[in-house]
Amino acid sequence: MIRTGGVQQMARGLCQIMGREISKGNFNTNIRQMTPRGTLQLPWSINSVRTMAPRDFSLPNSSWGSDMRRLYEHYNSQCEVETDDGEKKWGVWRRLPSYNRSLKYATGGVYLSKIIQSKARLFTRNIRAQGAGFEYVVFVNKQEQKCVCVFQAGHLLEGPPGHVHGGAIATMIDTVTGTHATYLSGPVMTANLNINYRSPISLGSTVLLTCSLDKKEGRKTFVSCQVTNTDSSKLHTEATGLFLSITMGHLLGG
Amino acid sequence: MIRTGGVQQMARGLCQIMGREISKGNFNTNIRQMTPRGTLQLPWSINSVRTMAPRDFSLPNSSWGSDMRRLYEHYNSQCEVETDDGEKKWGVWRRLPSYNRSLKYATGGVYLSKIIQSKARLFTRNIRAQGAGFEYVVFVNKQEQKCVCVFQAGHLLEGPPGHVHGGAIATMIDTVTGTHATYLSGPVMTANLNINYRSPISLGSTVLLTCSLDKKEGRKTFVSCQVTNTDSSKLHTEATGLFLSITMGHLLGG
Repeated sequence: MIRTGGVQQMARGLCQIMGREISKGNFNTNIRQMTPRGTLQLPWSINSVRTMAPRDFSLPNSSWGSDMRRLYEHYNSQCEVETDDGEKKWGVWRRLPSYNRSLKYATGGVYLSKIIQSKARLFTRNIRAQGAGFEYVVFVNKQEQKCVCVFQAGHLLEGPPGHVHGGAIATMIDTVTGTHATYLSGPVMTANLNINYRSPISLGSTVLLTCSLDKKEGRKTFVSCQVTNTDSSKLHTEATGLFLSITMGHLLGG
Repeated sequence: MIRTGGVQQMARGLCQIMGREISKGNFNTNIRQMTPRGTLQLPWSINSVRTMAPRDFSLPNSSWGSDMRRLYEHYNSQCEVETDDGEKKWGVWRRLPSYNRSLKYATGGVYLSKIIQSKARLFTRNIRAQGAGFEYVVFVNKQEQKCVCVFQAGHLLEGPPGHVHGGAIATMIDTVTGTHATYLSGPVMTANLNINYRSPISLGSTVLLTCSLDKKEGRKTFVSCQVTNTDSSKLHTEATGLFLSITMGHLLGG
């Protein structure tokens, strides 16, 4: 029998679905309320848990250009603020870590990918070479129910000559709107994406995805998203996403 | 000055935009009608043209499972038929070749990727390992204005644990609806994708994307798409796509 704390940790890990990452401490639901029998059956032993943290892909690397670094610093500097007394406290923004498996880890150091063996990799983090694919970092603002993603498009994401593939843009929109919906509503699945492509995005450029909550209705969370250049003066793409809340049973195939 | 034939060949190559491939012989528009001054300025010398054909990713490889192979054979066997006289002629279906650059080549063996040097790769063909990413082949049926794609989802396309990422599904929908629109209307760009996710797709499984023309209105081509299991008994995803016809000037950034 696994201790409740461990199961809760795993539940947080499981919420990294659809390429979304939720921040530590936002998953307060007791997992025992989510499964029919009040417990979660685990097909592995807790003894095999490894505590070393996996690579966090949302941290800066040498492939990041000046736009990507500047915007990262802009939001990251607002994640922790210093009070007049010299103490540090959380700011309005929170950076979300990002790993290369949807079911990568549970917060607190429990490393699920070592328990559930698989060669599967999260679609947006499946390329090893830094800067070649999706370079992105997501920040959420709980007060304003807003979320931003700084995204630098690598050369392996080509669609039209010299420009980002419409599917790669859709992938980032699904990822960021889904992350935002998960942050606001707990575990969700994408039900609809409606995407209007206004202006192509050049390969290698950095863009900003800005998401906001439109409304919540029962199990439904409606999120909208705009993809703009870095100073928000040019709209590249706009989209809406509808997400349905799911239970841990859904997540585990129940 | 390049000869018209060469330019037309390149125009065919250029129509492989947005991850779409159009079949040989379907691009009859004279390129001189498409650019303001009646000629296309080329920033390279024709002397550097290489005639060796690049790898065609739409052909079977050892990673293809039984479903993928069976459906490939089903459509491929209808691409060429034998008459009573023992002669071979085109069938109702046509397999579209697929390369790892949007601007890879011009039909007739002109290999543009050697002319326009770039490390950019088509998003859907950017993974070297066979079977790890998108394995797919597109067939078009001009008579019925219909298009099918057999798609096997590799382990690097994960979204929810054990299932295909919504962005990877959107990518295939954009690719196949866009290919169909290009086949019917010539060069196009995606203006809108509206995607309803009905049922998750298991990682490693093979699905069928079936596209049909809804209508054409001036520059607009409306295509719908269904993603089903291989016997079409289960609907995974359905979508509509709106595509705008563009000129060669648009394609070349004019």
